[in-house]
Amino acid sequence: MRSPILDYLDSIITDTAHIDSGATADYIPELAAADPTRAAVALCTTNGTVYASGDADHQFSIQSMSKPFAYALAIEDHGLDYVLDRIGVEPSGDAFNELSLDPETGKPRNPMINAGAITTHTLIKADDGTTAVDRVLAFFADLAERPVEVDEAVAASELRTADRNLGLAYLLHGSGSLSGDPAKAVAGYIRQCAASVTVSDLALMAATLANGGVQPNTGKQLLCRPTNRHLLSVMASCGMYDAAGNWLTTVGIPAKSGVAGGIIGVLPGQVGVAVFSPRLDAHGNSARGVAMMELLSEDLGLHLMEASRPSRSSLWETQIVSLDGTEATIYVLQGDLVLSSIESLVHEILTHPPRTDLVVFDMSRVDEVLPVAKRTSSETATKLIDEGYRIVIVDPEGTIEDFTDSRGRAVERWTPEQLSKAVG
Amino acid sequence: MRSPILDYLDSIITDTAHIDSGATADYIPELAAADPTRAAVALCTTNGTVYASGDADHQFSIQSMSKPFAYALAIEDHGLDYVLDRIGVEPSGDAFNELSLDPETGKPRNPMINAGAITTHTLIKADDGTTAVDRVLAFFADLAERPVEVDEAVAASELRTADRNLGLAYLLHGSGSLSGDPAKAVAGYIRQCAASVTVSDLALMAATLANGGVQPNTGKQLLCRPTNRHLLSVMASCGMYDAAGNWLTTVGIPAKSGVAGGIIGVLPGQVGVAVFSPRLDAHGNSARGVAMMELLSEDLGLHLMEASRPSRSSLWETQIVSLDGTEATIYVLQGDLVLSSIESLVHEILTHPPRTDLVVFDMSRVDEVLPVAKRTSSETATKLIDEGYRIVIVDPEGTIEDFTDSRGRAVERWTPEQLSKAVG
Amino acid sequence: MRSPILDYLDSIITDTAHIDSGATADYIPELAAADPTRAAVALCTTNGTVYASGDADHQFSIQSMSKPFAYALAIEDHGLDYVLDRIGVEPSGDAFNELSLDPETGKPRNPMINAGAITTHTLIKADDGTTAVDRVLAFFADLAERPVEVDEAVAASELRTADRNLGLAYLLHGSGSLSGDPAKAVAGYIRQCAASVTVSDLALMAATLANGGVQPNTGKQLLCRPTNRHLLSVMASCGMYDAAGNWLTTVGIPAKSGVAGGIIGVLPGQVGVAVFSPRLDAHGNSARGVAMMELLSEDLGLHLMEASRPSRSSLWETQIVSLDGTEATIYVLQGDLVLSSIESLVHEILTHPPRTDLVVFDMSRVDEVLPVAKRTSSETATKLIDEGYRIVIVDPEGTIEDFTDSRGRAVERWTPEQLSKAVG
Amino acid sequence: MRSPILDYLDSIITDTAHIDSGATADYIPELAAADPTRAAVALCTTNGTVYASGDADHQFSIQSMSKPFAYALAIEDHGLDYVLDRIGVEPSGDAFNELSLDPETGKPRNPMINAGAITTHTLIKADDGTTAVDRVLAFFADLAERPVEVDEAVAASELRTADRNLGLAYLLHGSGSLSGDPAKAVAGYIRQCAASVTVSDLALMAATLANGGVQPNTGKQLLCRPTNRHLLSVMASCGMYDAAGNWLTTVGIPAKSGVAGGIIGVLPGQVGVAVFSPRLDAHGNSARGVAMMELLSEDLGLHLMEASRPSRSSLWETQIVSLDGTEATIYVLQGDLVLSSIESLVHEILTHPPRTDLVVFDMSRVDEVLPVAKRTSSETATKLIDEGYRIVIVDPEGTIEDFTDSRGRAVERWTPEQLSKAVG
Repeated sequence: MRSPILDYLDSIITDTAHIDSGATADYIPELAAADPTRAAVALCTTNGTVYASGDADHQFSIQSMSKPFAYALAIEDHGLDYVLDRIGVEPSGDAFNELSLDPETGKPRNPMINAGAITTHTLIKADDGTTAVDRVLAFFADLAERPVEVDEAVAASELRTADRNLGLAYLLHGSGSLSGDPAKAVAGYIRQCAASVTVSDLALMAATLANGGVQPNTGKQLLCRPTNRHLLSVMASCGMYDAAGNWLTTVGIPAKSGVAGGIIGVLPGQVGVAVFSPRLDAHGNSARGVAMMELLSEDLGLHLMEASRPSRSSLWETQIVSLDGTEATIYVLQGDLVLSSIESLVHEILTHPPRTDLVVFDMSRVDEVLPVAKRTSSETATKLIDEGYRIVIVDPEGTIEDFTDSRGRAVERWTPEQLSKAVG
Repeated sequence: MRSPILDYLDSIITDTAHIDSGATADYIPELAAADPTRAAVALCTTNGTVYASGDADHQFSIQSMSKPFAYALAIEDHGLDYVLDRIGVEPSGDAFNELSLDPETGKPRNPMINAGAITTHTLIKADDGTTAVDRVLAFFADLAERPVEVDEAVAASELRTADRNLGLAYLLHGSGSLSGDPAKAVAGYIRQCAASVTVSDLALMAATLANGGVQPNTGKQLLCRPTNRHLLSVMASCGMYDAAGNWLTTVGIPAKSGVAGGIIGVLPGQVGVAVFSPRLDAHGNSARGVAMMELLSEDLGLHLMEASRPSRSSLWETQIVSLDGTEATIYVLQGDLVLSSIESLVHEILTHPPRTDLVVFDMSRVDEVLPVAKRTSSETATKLIDEGYRIVIVDPEGTIEDFTDSRGRAVERWTPEQLSKAVG
Repeated sequence: MRSPILDYLDSIITDTAHIDSGATADYIPELAAADPTRAAVALCTTNGTVYASGDADHQFSIQSMSKPFAYALAIEDHGLDYVLDRIGVEPSGDAFNELSLDPETGKPRNPMINAGAITTHTLIKADDGTTAVDRVLAFFADLAERPVEVDEAVAASELRTADRNLGLAYLLHGSGSLSGDPAKAVAGYIRQCAASVTVSDLALMAATLANGGVQPNTGKQLLCRPTNRHLLSVMASCGMYDAAGNWLTTVGIPAKSGVAGGIIGVLPGQVGVAVFSPRLDAHGNSARGVAMMELLSEDLGLHLMEASRPSRSSLWETQIVSLDGTEATIYVLQGDLVLSSIESLVHEILTHPPRTDLVVFDMSRVDEVLPVAKRTSSETATKLIDEGYRIVIVDPEGTIEDFTDSRGRAVERWTPEQLSKAVG
Repeated sequence: MRSPILDYLDSIITDTAHIDSGATADYIPELAAADPTRAAVALCTTNGTVYASGDADHQFSIQSMSKPFAYALAIEDHGLDYVLDRIGVEPSGDAFNELSLDPETGKPRNPMINAGAITTHTLIKADDGTTAVDRVLAFFADLAERPVEVDEAVAASELRTADRNLGLAYLLHGSGSLSGDPAKAVAGYIRQCAASVTVSDLALMAATLANGGVQPNTGKQLLCRPTNRHLLSVMASCGMYDAAGNWLTTVGIPAKSGVAGGIIGVLPGQVGVAVFSPRLDAHGNSARGVAMMELLSEDLGLHLMEASRPSRSSLWETQIVSLDGTEATIYVLQGDLVLSSIESLVHEILTHPPRTDLVVFDMSRVDEVLPVAKRTSSETATKLIDEGYRIVIVDPEGTIEDFTDSRGRAVERWTPEQLSKAVG
């Protein structure tokens, strides 16, 4: 049985087949020669399964889609502040061929335009025998779960038309934003951009970003959470060159395009997507790729401002039971305890105080607990103890730390088995 | 028992009490005279309960925080395309005192800067006896669940120093972006901005935006979903004047500030927040208010790129039971069926096909079903029927429409009661 | 006998008759209705005779050509520093419909664009009974030697479409660059621009600027020399809106155009010219008018960088004569004594010292003596006395002050008659 | 006897000795190490004599003052249109470290900023064995009448800090504005800028520009007149980086500064000046040098808008004499016949027609005759013949071509000797 999700992706290819506007990048001979009719789409949820349709096995160069990943590496290598001192995070509002250097500092406006990306490349630590390109390729391999290599023909072609990037690199070196040899920086950056990938690779790479930096299949924390969050924010505001506002209102997902025709998109917590089609529109984004992204956003409800669905209460159910002969109120909690979910629980307890002296919070079904929820839970329990209740927590994951009320009285802790046995 | 959430908000006031940088707006005498030591914070989840701390009952003028609401009204009145033809959605990158008119069309860059907001005001439909100001105030009242009035002293004070807005209005009229009398437009806009509110009002108003346009307490759909989504996107990119990238990376929530010292923020699906403190920083945002927003974002996990937590599978549990003597597989689904949750269900079925002929999908615990999930569910069921399975759906909310497989065979539908009885 | 100069001007009209590109100003109904085929040209040397051809008696509104004259009045009223504090002198590089306000100060970039011209208008002193408009009209009358009046139909038409100017005026008032009521400022400015003139008037007005601020026929010093020099500098860099560099390289004379189709030009020391034809090019300058100016510049050698012809030596001739029986050297000087002319005289004396003890400097044929020449002459004479020469100056105009050499010996002074008699 | 002009230049050095603001260029070690107290000034009229004071023999690198000369060479090599297609002539309005590339075409805004000057350098024709640097040095030698050499230490120092220029060159190559190897272009340009000169050299070079492109001493036409005129126009609008309007209003002469501390200025028709002092102001111009230029402009009346003195009539005198017994009117003409001078002659003849049948125009004292004057003279003579006068021209230089009146009657031509004899 074929997955209906594949059927859906097939329909994306079919429904955009008529789009033949735009042209392949003309300034890089190898890209200009690409077959303009190719198209592919892939998606990968945070479960790690990749679905792909169209020319899914076709390899093309990652180009500017390498920028967010290289930027993440640079932040992991040096810390965010160090990188922010050298590269801004403001949308440039400029077309993709603008310089986008801050007029006062000469600092690149953001890491998603070339000036910022070349600087980024030089911030990736290399040691003896390992170059920044090696590091990036190894990172790609970790993300995509397969070896990723440079397309040497593309790299050579781009090196021959690297004037603009060389110009930027020398200017950046001149203003102190870039250390080391500008020509070497450009050569390395070009090789980074020439890494060869498929939409399936890209969807899996994007899924890692959707999954808080954890590769869904290997479980490796490839990026720490704050870096991942920062990266997605920058992709949201600076990823699609100019017209940031238009992209955010219509498609509404953090994304990055590459001049070979690829676009990756990330819906935090849910899914990574990737599309490919070589013809570019006036902004330098794949014309058919943008159309595919619009369909995906609309059909799959991926828009950032829509995707965050109103969260349900943490309170799964309230049971009044006899525990070993004592009447007790059991609050069965569920899901993630975030502000809005814990608030409804606390509100319920405050407006309808438990009618039994024994109160059990069953957290067996709880997934993650935000600090604010931890603190609010503890405080609520403490207040209940103060008011004379006997509080039991069933917390197999140990998400709530021990605490005591104002008179030193602690909550009791039961295992789920103890609870089951007590319920009888 | 006092809510721990109130305790938390108290701590926000306390922890920012030392911040006394910035100055009250100096160009409007009434605002310049505000007590700079005042501070307040409020939040309201999509459940509609408002929590507030500090000078929570202090009334101040809504100022630019009126812009997103007026913009929404204009869109509801004319449709999005009509409004987009007159006002852009790109961040201006300019300081708050820049003109931000498109150099070619004279069109305001976005509705969150004054030029765009004055134009917005003139797009709100008024009929005999009802002015645009009346419409906005009535809208505020619906959002805040109480009458909202203009602070006439503030309005009069601003009218006397309205040069800049008059200048903008005449330029907009000259370029055709604004119809009607420019002086009247400014007078109306100034009254809109002088509406008097508290942080509690604002948190409730913001909560409506967090709740997909539905006022949490009255249940009224005050804004249609697409308008609400568009509005939040624009607030995310253009709400905090310049430094959009900085706001998005650090605070990460759609927001809007007002020159009287207020800031509202919206985390879609979860919560609306509002803070107030009169001293403004160099960007024209409340200095202490920004600090309060940063704390709220960090403590409450409100950052857009963080808040969308990895969603759980739709599959609550799989039971193998005997139904009226026939062995059956029951898939108990839960929560919202979105792409990432339905994908894991489908994947499970494809990799581990049911071992019984009778397959039941229990959707009693399902909340909302996105179109993509509906379609995917139907297709999965159809394929299973094709392969010889007998499919039963328990769908009390009727979220899945009837459908038949390729040979016209339909799924069966049971009520939850039927299922309970069958399980025995 | 008809003047050949009139014949030449006829040829200008004839040779540009084929130019019908551009269109009349469309935003002012009265101007839009102008007969587009009209054309006129006039010139007036510093002798004050006006030559004109084409529709020379046709009256049209002066429009922006009023700006330099109003600017001069403001400087005479307040002093240059006061005006420079409020209005810059830098070319805007902007099209004629740009705001051209300094982004930091809100100050208009220069007095030749509308923002600067509206501010200028408010700087013209008015007292009881006399408005700024009265002052400007009186100044025009002094320049043109005839009463100049406002075309009320044009003024009324422009007042009805004054949005842009009102917008500018309110912005300028808001930034403190403009005092008084913005609406009144615009109304006055519009009347200033609606003053009705002919090309003959304009040529005569321009000739006053060419003549160092002295009206050639009445001899009145209408502008002091430094104001006049400053004004011409500003016209050279800011007069023709954007493309200042293009105008300076091709036409090369300080100029100003008006939206009704007029252009005035000034070649310092030589001539004022004026052309008229209503169709405007993309820069807002009369298309045929620009062509006429190019012909005039080329044919008449008016280019600033060409017109200043290599100056001749001040030394008209050297005579060795017997004066009352004593052999003497007479240096007959001529023309203006400026640096380059006096230098050749001094050089001659140093390289070929006089061979007679008696040396006469005959300055009867000298026109004007620059301070540097005065000083250099005195010093040369002093040095000659020191070396034992007997020096006589024939200086009927008294351009050289009395002086003595290091030992207190003075030069002798003779009248021209004394010299004639001595020569015998 | 020492020339008073030297005394005057001494006073320039003395009167600016207190100015010690600014700092030597810090980005080029060799320049940073310059003795900041050095100062020199030189001037050279169109007669070719150079006067200099201060550190007049101190050699320093020409730097950006090489730009106008190299630009002139490029125009002479390719024609103006070819060069204008590659480099604009608009002032950049930017600080001296801005890129100043046209955002649409990538074309440098003007040849006086680095981007334009590097492009200029590549437009100088080189053939086998002769590089562009050789050509420029040879041109400098022709201008300065002595061999000019590259200061190799300065060139080497600048090559090591050439990032910014390399950046520009690669960007220019990328946008198609620059052909050939960018690195070679920069190396050549840097050597051009490192040419070693004194203020005396520079004053003589500037005097050639003042003299219509003719080296005053050798008489060689080093630049054709239109190139020279164009060059001076560009220096007037773009020579002193930003603040073009300020320079034109206050100093008012075409000029160019160099980062080593030199400034050259040209008053067309009169004089070239050069100053030197190493400390630079915020604009990158020599601080003391600017002060020296202001004094020179003020003292010597060099301001463009002042220097063009009202021209005198062409009519030297009118004599009524008996020529061989016939009463005749002799008009003795003088100086250059330009529009304004010829106009007064024609006006005189028209208003006071000759009272004798025989009319003689004595042009022996005439210097140059502009085309417009030639044509006007001929037409005036023709009209007089038509009216029955007998016209004789004494035109030893042959400035007026032969012509005949409408009935084929020609003017008569006499030699000066014939006239003398006839006067008797």
